[in-house]
Amino acid sequence: MVETTRIVLASRPEGAPTAANFRTETAELPPLEEGQVLLRTLYLSLDPYMRGRMSAAKSYAKPVEVGGVMVGGTVAEVVDSRAAELAKGDVVLAYSGWQTHDVVAASSVRKLDPDTAPVSTALGVLGMPGFTAYSGLLKIGQPQAGETVVVAAATGPVGSAVGQIAKIKGARAVGIAGGPRKCAALLDELGFDAAIDHRAPDFAEQLKAAVPDGIDVYFENVAGAVADAVYPLLNTYARVPVCGLIANYNTTGDEDGPDRLPAFYSRILVKSLTVRGFIQTEFVRELYPDFLREMGEWVGDGRVRYLEDITEGFENAPEAFIGMLEGRNFGKVVVKVAD
Amino acid sequence: MVETTRIVLASRPEGAPTAANFRTETAELPPLEEGQVLLRTLYLSLDPYMRGRMSAAKSYAKPVEVGGVMVGGTVAEVVDSRAAELAKGDVVLAYSGWQTHDVVAASSVRKLDPDTAPVSTALGVLGMPGFTAYSGLLKIGQPQAGETVVVAAATGPVGSAVGQIAKIKGARAVGIAGGPRKCAALLDELGFDAAIDHRAPDFAEQLKAAVPDGIDVYFENVAGAVADAVYPLLNTYARVPVCGLIANYNTTGDEDGPDRLPAFYSRILVKSLTVRGFIQTEFVRELYPDFLREMGEWVGDGRVRYLEDITEGFENAPEAFIGMLEGRNFGKVVVKVAD
Repeated sequence: MVETTRIVLASRPEGAPTAANFRTETAELPPLEEGQVLLRTLYLSLDPYMRGRMSAAKSYAKPVEVGGVMVGGTVAEVVDSRAAELAKGDVVLAYSGWQTHDVVAASSVRKLDPDTAPVSTALGVLGMPGFTAYSGLLKIGQPQAGETVVVAAATGPVGSAVGQIAKIKGARAVGIAGGPRKCAALLDELGFDAAIDHRAPDFAEQLKAAVPDGIDVYFENVAGAVADAVYPLLNTYARVPVCGLIANYNTTGDEDGPDRLPAFYSRILVKSLTVRGFIQTEFVRELYPDFLREMGEWVGDGRVRYLEDITEGFENAPEAFIGMLEGRNFGKVVVKVAD
Repeated sequence: MVETTRIVLASRPEGAPTAANFRTETAELPPLEEGQVLLRTLYLSLDPYMRGRMSAAKSYAKPVEVGGVMVGGTVAEVVDSRAAELAKGDVVLAYSGWQTHDVVAASSVRKLDPDTAPVSTALGVLGMPGFTAYSGLLKIGQPQAGETVVVAAATGPVGSAVGQIAKIKGARAVGIAGGPRKCAALLDELGFDAAIDHRAPDFAEQLKAAVPDGIDVYFENVAGAVADAVYPLLNTYARVPVCGLIANYNTTGDEDGPDRLPAFYSRILVKSLTVRGFIQTEFVRELYPDFLREMGEWVGDGRVRYLEDITEGFENAPEAFIGMLEGRNFGKVVVKVAD
């Protein structure tokens, strides 16, 4: 019998999650059946969408049940196999959630090639976050050469890919991030044309100065005060792909007034804006092969770079997750569970 | 010298316009130059967008100046011509605004054929409102057979066309209107599948019951309480073309709380909604010939019917306009200026 250590949802958070919302357990895994593999988690992905799954509110995906294992993408090593297509030692992309071991159908995982790119990138630039950027920007944002694209959380795995793909398409990329260190990385490591610190007291003025021709695409992954500063700068016919609303995730209901909805709605009309929510799964069938090929090339030739924020030790996942929601990470948050 | 009587913007309204915001004047028109025609207004169109032009706030079009003639589409008779392409007695679509006579370049008007349809329809179902419905519904709403389309102000020129075009495309049309008489017209005269009175105390429940499969397209032309009831019923991937916000036109700034924007924005994400503002002019070049041909056929064979609310007498234009903003009209509002 193989034992797995798992982190389950102990209770639903009210507002920002705390360590008390998580609990560590152990469980015995069943023996392998034909077609199954035993996985040992190497890397666990931590992503903002998981905050949504901790709440009972109806959303696009079912919430994690209280007592259930926290969901999440993983990179894992095959340690035992009863499937012809996978052998011991293979490394795969799985969706085992927050646990150290798992038994899954071989058909539910995708084998990775460790020679093309570090396997952890399958959780970031070459995985779900990268595909979120690629599909949302190209299908909804549709940046044209010479246009201006703005994205927040810009050193994160989605934002950094959005800016760099925008550049490849000939657009101007303006990144928003928290603090001078992240802003420096946007300019020096990720090739953005401008970087604005949303913590600066004159953030809105700095943003305005950085987009002399207005904003044509605002890739929305944070909402809140950043969106408040961006919307007045949107050009006629601007596109706003909405893939996440980190600033809103921890709100608990209606906010204090004034009611900003009428003015927001008027802006959509007056500027002929397109505001379009999406979950990357919508575009998987149509675009995933293109993504893997193009993004693989861009990462390979250095046109798309990525930052990883790796936390060592499975037991530190809750703290890393809480920190990510507060913006304390620097790049894609990955927990290194085992070597 | 020919004299024109015109209604000018006397002052900018605060909130809902009143008669005091308008003033009637007379002015002498200049003699005709080569290529010009003298027009006598037969019908003046009154439309909700004119409310926007009365305000100084930045919008998609320049405001009317205080003291300036109120803008508006007109159907007019040519009473004198120095242009080869137009003769005395021709009837044309013009944009003379709220006045009885005008001198314009012949190239700026479109000659109408009184034999195909009553000339007043060039201001309604076969004009700007009809094209707003046609272009917004087909380009943005994209109703599919079996889907449910909801539109408010549904006996108005835009709403009635939206519902009937939706039916032609195989969708289910649910109309919202104010009062039992309008609701009866939706079912009996305009062929909607369901009609809901937004003044009913249980309006939201009635709407929910009328859309058992949810809402796939919400053609937004009113906002306010109607939109509040519609949004929770939108299906995943629903489309919301936004062409007008009558309920918001008279607001004067930020509204009392709670702030509904965060919840609205979350809904866009969770349901993968497309919310898209538009002004029909965006689609004129691409779609206007198709519109004139198709809509002309549909009106000709009775598949698209229309309601007109004709006010007799130029001097009654301000009162008819104010009434329209309050929903007191029944169909497309037209002022009959002369026979």
